[in-house]
Amino acid sequence: MARISPLPVKGTRDWLPRDLVRRNRVFALLRETFERYGYEPLETPAIEHTSVLEGKYGEEGERLLFRILKRGRELESAARQVASQSEEERSAAALTRLLSDEALRYDLTVPFARVIAGHQNDLVFPFRRYQMQTVWRGDRPQRGRYREFFQCDVDCVGSRSMTVDAEMALIYREVFDGLGLTDTITKINHRGLLASIMEACQVPPESRGATLTAIDKLDKIGPDGVREELGKAGLPDVSVARVMEVSGIAGEPQAVIERLRPLVAGTLEGQDNLNELREVFAYIQQMGMPPERYTFDVSLVRGLGYYTGPIYETVLPGSSLGSLGGGGRYDRLIGMFLGRDLPCVGISFGIERIFDALEERHLLTGEVATTTQALVTLFAPETFAAAFALAAELRAAGIRTEVYPEPKELRAQLTFANKKGVPLAVILGPDELAAGAVVLRDLRAGTQRAVPRAEAVAQAQALLTAADAPNRE
Amino acid sequence: MARISPLPVKGTRDWLPRDLVRRNRVFALLRETFERYGYEPLETPAIEHTSVLEGKYGEEGERLLFRILKRGRELESAARQVASQSEEERSAAALTRLLSDEALRYDLTVPFARVIAGHQNDLVFPFRRYQMQTVWRGDRPQRGRYREFFQCDVDCVGSRSMTVDAEMALIYREVFDGLGLTDTITKINHRGLLASIMEACQVPPESRGATLTAIDKLDKIGPDGVREELGKAGLPDVSVARVMEVSGIAGEPQAVIERLRPLVAGTLEGQDNLNELREVFAYIQQMGMPPERYTFDVSLVRGLGYYTGPIYETVLPGSSLGSLGGGGRYDRLIGMFLGRDLPCVGISFGIERIFDALEERHLLTGEVATTTQALVTLFAPETFAAAFALAAELRAAGIRTEVYPEPKELRAQLTFANKKGVPLAVILGPDELAAGAVVLRDLRAGTQRAVPRAEAVAQAQALLTAADAPNRE
Repeated sequence: MARISPLPVKGTRDWLPRDLVRRNRVFALLRETFERYGYEPLETPAIEHTSVLEGKYGEEGERLLFRILKRGRELESAARQVASQSEEERSAAALTRLLSDEALRYDLTVPFARVIAGHQNDLVFPFRRYQMQTVWRGDRPQRGRYREFFQCDVDCVGSRSMTVDAEMALIYREVFDGLGLTDTITKINHRGLLASIMEACQVPPESRGATLTAIDKLDKIGPDGVREELGKAGLPDVSVARVMEVSGIAGEPQAVIERLRPLVAGTLEGQDNLNELREVFAYIQQMGMPPERYTFDVSLVRGLGYYTGPIYETVLPGSSLGSLGGGGRYDRLIGMFLGRDLPCVGISFGIERIFDALEERHLLTGEVATTTQALVTLFAPETFAAAFALAAELRAAGIRTEVYPEPKELRAQLTFANKKGVPLAVILGPDELAAGAVVLRDLRAGTQRAVPRAEAVAQAQALLTAADAPNRE
Repeated sequence: MARISPLPVKGTRDWLPRDLVRRNRVFALLRETFERYGYEPLETPAIEHTSVLEGKYGEEGERLLFRILKRGRELESAARQVASQSEEERSAAALTRLLSDEALRYDLTVPFARVIAGHQNDLVFPFRRYQMQTVWRGDRPQRGRYREFFQCDVDCVGSRSMTVDAEMALIYREVFDGLGLTDTITKINHRGLLASIMEACQVPPESRGATLTAIDKLDKIGPDGVREELGKAGLPDVSVARVMEVSGIAGEPQAVIERLRPLVAGTLEGQDNLNELREVFAYIQQMGMPPERYTFDVSLVRGLGYYTGPIYETVLPGSSLGSLGGGGRYDRLIGMFLGRDLPCVGISFGIERIFDALEERHLLTGEVATTTQALVTLFAPETFAAAFALAAELRAAGIRTEVYPEPKELRAQLTFANKKGVPLAVILGPDELAAGAVVLRDLRAGTQRAVPRAEAVAQAQALLTAADAPNRE
């Protein structure tokens, strides 16, 4: 038979055990943290009706959808329509509409909104959930950008209380602390407040989008770059000056609030928005978040159109990686499915970026390379029964134990364990069997000693506990 | 905006927390068991090149593939070809070939074989791995049959040793014991031995496929049904009689082996195959598997063409559910990707069937309905800080704790916790705050008591431990 290419599809990855063990450790920490805050897991199917996905991600996003080809008669009928079209009618967009009505998940937010609408009677509100699943986008693959990749969202639906908004900052901190990224900073701002500020700075309504886009780039292009963009957007000089002044404000929340108060005092909405943020910051403080881990940053905008209240972005100082996650309050998205608005607040974790950050900080090295903790060797057939019994005892004691599958010289079996990264070899050959002993070989330290058979399991446990302690560098 | 249907795509499921918590408990037990036997996790992408999948699942299987529609210019060019075809050329099969060259995973075995070939230098052999991921098949959905569903495979690649074959029976037993299905029976047979038996029964080579298919149905259609099918297959009467006699043999392995020995003594291959099984049964016994949990069943065939050695099937006596899992040795599949053969042995767990079995045995009721263990109530704003601090302490003690997001009357907050299935409410209102106390309400028992604030966390822990103990009925 002809040999077939063993490479995965471009932009996708095979997860071998070494990488998967590492990935799953991070995933487990995320899950544990979310659940510790009362967020429940939720999962949706990989495939969605295109009617669910369309109109949510813009033209560019829709171009990137992985669409499922129709099957059987439906496909034949669609093909007849394709054939009857003229060359001009046959754009890629028109063709996809004919040939497909299902597509792979593009993000987690839209399917979540669909679930909320579909199961509003099965769910108990306010509903806290997290979701960590793959999404698919037909982007051009490049370093660190995949076509199949993980997203991780944490949302609370059904409460307008700012305690939930505050909690989001805390969850960021707790996750990143757990990963060893103990200096992340969560920037906080408010989408409604930004609108009030635009008004106060007399930015004409038609220039507000461009103005926010420019402000959002402050970190990247600096004040001069922003000023230039604002000029290009046709903003009057007086507005440019005011926007530049206000958008440069960032720092200790109380101080920022005091500086902004006179600016937005002119409208009730402006006062309300600022008061919401004041509340958020008060709760964050009451929840015990250290002041150096969050900031009020007026230049934070967050691209997505659907935010309506407080917004967040978490960054790693001294790193070029950009944001490790972001989110905010979006009180109107669910309405697209539900027919009525439901208040929501949610954050994302940028999984790939987080792994890059852990790599950059050398927080991934030194970790275990396999789930397996012990290898029981296998020699002459007359020792098999003893080896199997020993393995059973180790397993009963909770030690993840592999028995080498066939008799082979010791060196080959130890090489096998070393290559895999198994920390402990449990050697039970004819000599040991005769002596009523077992040799425990610590493969990380390269040391070994014989112990009485009756003590083997307890000693193995002690060795593994000692070896496991310094989990990270 | 027009309201969009909130239903998931036909044949797929939204996993709400209640079901997901239940599902993940079973999955965790499977993973833990596999890892305890030294099997490492592995995952492959959802999308594969169709060249990888084609030719593996038969015509019927290929018709069920979820294919990814080409995008952009590739799609336009494919559409031109579709348009230039005549109506007769335009079969569904021909169209899919033109319009798609990627498809969703149909099983886990073929992608695994691809990974082995592609990463043979990164992996350490013999390589034990498990894989638990969704697969997609465009079957007509019906009760218990989905288009997106889980498969779970456990395989060992790179050893011809029968110790691995024996281990598979043990893993079945340990998983099902862990789930409370403590009476499963693993039937064992040998594909090569079946071939030797066909020869010994003088079944003509061209009738062997039909004969095996008939034997495989013994459980379902009984001896008379099998005899009828064998007659229809054109088997000579003498062969029918011999096949009927042999295929009815099942039971204690040593006895079955002795009965079969004279039958296959005529060929070296027959002797070897029987000896392999003798070895498997010896190891199974040495590994401590109780004799009532496995049997040698000559009528076990297993449909898939690629098995070459020992085969397994695990059933639940007294249930109509059929097999909960099956597998065997397949020494040639990897060669399709690798260019050379690698010995493999593997088993599957029928995830959906297993859930049905747990349901049938009432082993899923009485389990927790949410990951959340405690709800901290929220009342007047002056109590917020105390509630947040208490929640932080509960979390630090490892208790998964949700704070009710907004002040509300107690009854509404308790109803919320009850509906979700949260076992414990931790009540801290103005009265409790003034008294230096906290009320712990056990929502399952419907009892409550006030405890000093300083003891709240320890008492909550004790309550949850007591409530968690009777996990199953």
